[in-house]
Amino acid sequence: METFVHVLDLIGTFVFAISGAVAAVNRRLDIFGTLVLSFVAGNFGGVARDLVIGAVPPAALTDGRYLLVSVLAGLITFFWYAGVDRLRSPVLLFDAAGLSLFAVAGAQKALGFGLNPVMAALLGMLTGIGGGIARDVLLAEIPQVLRSDLYAVAALTGAAVVVIGKMLDLSYGVSALAGAALCFGLRFMAIRHHWNLPV
Amino acid sequence: METFVHVLDLIGTFVFAISGAVAAVNRRLDIFGTLVLSFVAGNFGGVARDLVIGAVPPAALTDGRYLLVSVLAGLITFFWYAGVDRLRSPVLLFDAAGLSLFAVAGAQKALGFGLNPVMAALLGMLTGIGGGIARDVLLAEIPQVLRSDLYAVAALTGAAVVVIGKMLDLSYGVSALAGAALCFGLRFMAIRHHWNLPV
Amino acid sequence: METFVHVLDLIGTFVFAISGAVAAVNRRLDIFGTLVLSFVAGNFGGVARDLVIGAVPPAALTDGRYLLVSVLAGLITFFWYAGVDRLRSPVLLFDAAGLSLFAVAGAQKALGFGLNPVMAALLGMLTGIGGGIARDVLLAEIPQVLRSDLYAVAALTGAAVVVIGKMLDLSYGVSALAGAALCFGLRFMAIRHHWNLPV
Repeated sequence: METFVHVLDLIGTFVFAISGAVAAVNRRLDIFGTLVLSFVAGNFGGVARDLVIGAVPPAALTDGRYLLVSVLAGLITFFWYAGVDRLRSPVLLFDAAGLSLFAVAGAQKALGFGLNPVMAALLGMLTGIGGGIARDVLLAEIPQVLRSDLYAVAALTGAAVVVIGKMLDLSYGVSALAGAALCFGLRFMAIRHHWNLPV
Repeated sequence: METFVHVLDLIGTFVFAISGAVAAVNRRLDIFGTLVLSFVAGNFGGVARDLVIGAVPPAALTDGRYLLVSVLAGLITFFWYAGVDRLRSPVLLFDAAGLSLFAVAGAQKALGFGLNPVMAALLGMLTGIGGGIARDVLLAEIPQVLRSDLYAVAALTGAAVVVIGKMLDLSYGVSALAGAALCFGLRFMAIRHHWNLPV
Repeated sequence: METFVHVLDLIGTFVFAISGAVAAVNRRLDIFGTLVLSFVAGNFGGVARDLVIGAVPPAALTDGRYLLVSVLAGLITFFWYAGVDRLRSPVLLFDAAGLSLFAVAGAQKALGFGLNPVMAALLGMLTGIGGGIARDVLLAEIPQVLRSDLYAVAALTGAAVVVIGKMLDLSYGVSALAGAALCFGLRFMAIRHHWNLPV
């Protein structure tokens, strides 16, 4: 189980890193800027969460695999941009999977550091959306996450399921699975049917 | 006294949150993005201060009332935007009040964590202006705080009064009142007479 | 040696602060906004590093000389902008010197806090480029550092030399000197010959 979650976490980092690299290449950053955006998009959510709960240094900086996976995603995108671009809709699905897992894992970690339930759910959401926000801020754009397709709401829902599960004394495995599935489902439906929040 | 200060602090958060929500609605963010901007504008200054002085997790994340007040401000603004907009000049006054209190309380907290006087005054200022800076950065704009109407200078002055009071062994109540009044007065005059710093 | 390094560190802060002030004056911020940009450009890299490694409060906030030097750079730039502008190419050289020193000192500090070698090198780089990134984000621009002239790569190279030196048990003085010289040399050549990374 532990290993399975860790693998999913790295997949999430990889997919978010690709979103950062694609945005960087579109704005014509050089290869180095592209790698920075990859790392930021893949890891900033977790780093921000770790800073506010006091878990320093953040896991993304002590476990080298996060860096490795981010750099790999950046290099692949930079050198095979056409290929990555053609995979746009599978990438969206992976991105939804990454979001689900980050939200769930982030909420769990915040609970473990003793935050109250509401804040733990919000920090789960922050873990999921933080990377995308930092990516867009570095590109001098209003974060897409704040304007589209139930993105943050899906993350918050997934995180909330974990928190509620904890309050009901359910096992983490069950509530994480349920939370991630709900987040993924919401995001999938939002993409497919262009669901949006009122403006 | 304690309760009174806390109530003022929550009022400050509320008013700053309204400024975030108004900016978000103007840029056509959806309801969720609006709530995020409300929370960020109302709380980022205090969160940034708490991070650099090592007070983690920040108070804004452990005391649920800050979240409650921010969400409330966001919802009111989102659904009664016309009403809030009509209140523009009372909002400016509340905003000046929020700034005064944040600056004073921020300086006091930094002193309590052992920072030197000059830095404590600057962190008081950061507490007051941080939310507005983060709000504008998320909207991809140059922070207004950095360009207008003695805003940050008023905050710095109020915070400095608290720090000087501490060095003179005055009671916190007296110096906080004096600092907040001075900050509020400066900001009020700057708004009324369009005082600006040299460019 | 200790004193010498400290003096260089303050020179680096001063030069970076000038880059912040020049950018602020160009965007017509008022004097206060200019001083904020000076401080941010001169110190944000070190502050961000200290936050993620858990060295709070950050040195830039506890040692008043960093503030003093930053404010001085801001005032000089604000009141003698024409003079500073004429010094553009010496400033670029000082900036390269500042970058070299920040990268080297940042990597050393991260090693001292027990980070792994790869991350220590990256944090050295972050120390060097963080101020420029924050400066540009506050001005709602895509950070120049991410798009030009081997800037970040030079910082990373210098930081890596320190980390490798540490792994080979060389004395810090030797590896710091070698790292700083390499970073400075790379940056100097990149400016002179317009070397860029592939886009």
